[in-house]
Amino acid sequence: MRAQATEFLRALRLHRENGAGAPVGDGTDAPRALRRAARRISGSLHTFQTLLDGDWSEAIRPELAWLSGTLALEHAYASRLDRLLQALHRLSGSASPVSPGYPDPPPPGLPAQQSADRGAPDRGALTVGAAKAGALLDRQLTLARTRAHSTALQALGSSRFHAVADKVAVLASDVPLAAGAAGADLRPLAAAAEDRLTDAVAALPLVTAGSPYNAAALIHGLSPDPSPHPQDTPWHQVRLLLRLHRYAREAVVGDDTPVGVRLLAAGEALDRHRDAAEAAAAAAQAARTPRIAPATAYALGVLHADQRHEVEAARYAFQHCWRKEPAATL
Amino acid sequence: MRAQATEFLRALRLHRENGAGAPVGDGTDAPRALRRAARRISGSLHTFQTLLDGDWSEAIRPELAWLSGTLALEHAYASRLDRLLQALHRLSGSASPVSPGYPDPPPPGLPAQQSADRGAPDRGALTVGAAKAGALLDRQLTLARTRAHSTALQALGSSRFHAVADKVAVLASDVPLAAGAAGADLRPLAAAAEDRLTDAVAALPLVTAGSPYNAAALIHGLSPDPSPHPQDTPWHQVRLLLRLHRYAREAVVGDDTPVGVRLLAAGEALDRHRDAAEAAAAAAQAARTPRIAPATAYALGVLHADQRHEVEAARYAFQHCWRKEPAATL
Repeated sequence: MRAQATEFLRALRLHRENGAGAPVGDGTDAPRALRRAARRISGSLHTFQTLLDGDWSEAIRPELAWLSGTLALEHAYASRLDRLLQALHRLSGSASPVSPGYPDPPPPGLPAQQSADRGAPDRGALTVGAAKAGALLDRQLTLARTRAHSTALQALGSSRFHAVADKVAVLASDVPLAAGAAGADLRPLAAAAEDRLTDAVAALPLVTAGSPYNAAALIHGLSPDPSPHPQDTPWHQVRLLLRLHRYAREAVVGDDTPVGVRLLAAGEALDRHRDAAEAAAAAAQAARTPRIAPATAYALGVLHADQRHEVEAARYAFQHCWRKEPAATL
Repeated sequence: MRAQATEFLRALRLHRENGAGAPVGDGTDAPRALRRAARRISGSLHTFQTLLDGDWSEAIRPELAWLSGTLALEHAYASRLDRLLQALHRLSGSASPVSPGYPDPPPPGLPAQQSADRGAPDRGALTVGAAKAGALLDRQLTLARTRAHSTALQALGSSRFHAVADKVAVLASDVPLAAGAAGADLRPLAAAAEDRLTDAVAALPLVTAGSPYNAAALIHGLSPDPSPHPQDTPWHQVRLLLRLHRYAREAVVGDDTPVGVRLLAAGEALDRHRDAAEAAAAAAQAARTPRIAPATAYALGVLHADQRHEVEAARYAFQHCWRKEPAATL
């Protein structure tokens, strides 16, 4: 166990030193690496908590969650904006060059094509409503992103961060184990993590999700509630459990063994599920901006529905690859 | 041929006499039966035109098209409104009683549940935007329906209608054949109708349609063009060719032989495709009403996207049942 944890933490430490040493800007991916490392440690602490010193792990887990949460926001806002602007272009028929025949759209979930021209999006190809909706989302999400950037910078300079960093440094050299846990077998705890995942997947409405165009994801699309989609929660939960299972598996078999393509595809589908759900919520929220033009609101409505259908598509993709045998190619 | 045509027309004549005798109101389905009969004759004239007197069939075909077109509108507006109000309720999560678990939505394309309470829809369950959107659509489509009703009444009382009726009466007793067409084999012409259908289906983007959540149907969802969906045209065309094939098949094997479940399901999918496409267009058009509230426009945007996804779902359903063997149960 100690060896595995140290292995994780050595990587973190390296990144942390890079990150803390250099001025943390957009140019380096140090915050991202830090966030990933914090998430991994947090996951291992969760899965193997019975082997660890209880007080110590109770103390560090919320700190790691704070760190990874704070560092995640800036990237989340940026990619949400990318996703929404890309969708607006697709919905305006301007995402791909017009072909004389029947245009096959880009498969959903590909990296944003629009990223390159984010600075000067091709607004000429958009309708007034789509252009205004894009400008509104750009304004709102860029503001949120800028705030998240400042918050992340402040966090990385804070004494709270340095305290976490010190704790992690201790962890890297000496994992505080519970009494009698030294040399314990990690496999039962990793298996328990897998069982939690399997149980959560079994509770998902996979039959509905496997029936294309079931129209379930949009069922509260016109609800006044800003968070009208409790149906998303079990899917988000499975996403987290899938990640914990992957980390636990790495701790047992080592991270040199590549993750099965099935787990990878399932995880990607759930990431897409989460991204689309949040993008849909952002479109709905933008539509509540006072004094917007009807054309803007209409475009945001189309955009919201489109992203909720992406949510549904991601569920379909998840159940599809989950049922596949690990050997299948994707 | 004559026997088959007479068979069709006897039914028409009966309905026509009912329809012309009684005051044609909403209570009777005489206009509907008339429309169907006119459509069938028109279809037979089209398929078997080389066997018929050219001048005569050139003269009657536009008149039959005018009649069936005029009679179809009232019903089309009524069912479009039903479809849109039902969708608004579904999108507000109020179409089915709220279940504690994961609500499975009603399968798309079922008869409108809302028909019963069209007079007093359950607006309390809708959000402000959805309720306003519903009221706007109700106003616009009820007005259109009332106009269509008047136009149909006028048409049925017009001398133009009586001229068509007289021609059809002649047809029922004596089909004006082309020289040398008496006793000709209908099968090659029916086969040609089937070939036209097969060719048109082969030209459809069935690979795209068969891949769920391809997002193709909404690709011009934000276009300013009121008819932004040329991609729908080949599907509408296949719908018409499928109908012609069915009529031609009936003329050859008789209408006692039940239509294969595959043809029936394919036809229903294409009807749904047409209905959803027109409903989506109606939602988009309502959103262009001046001075509507942003919340109304937003709801109409969600509704438009929802119906375009129904279009996509109908394409998926079509390719799915088209590829099935005729023996398969549906």
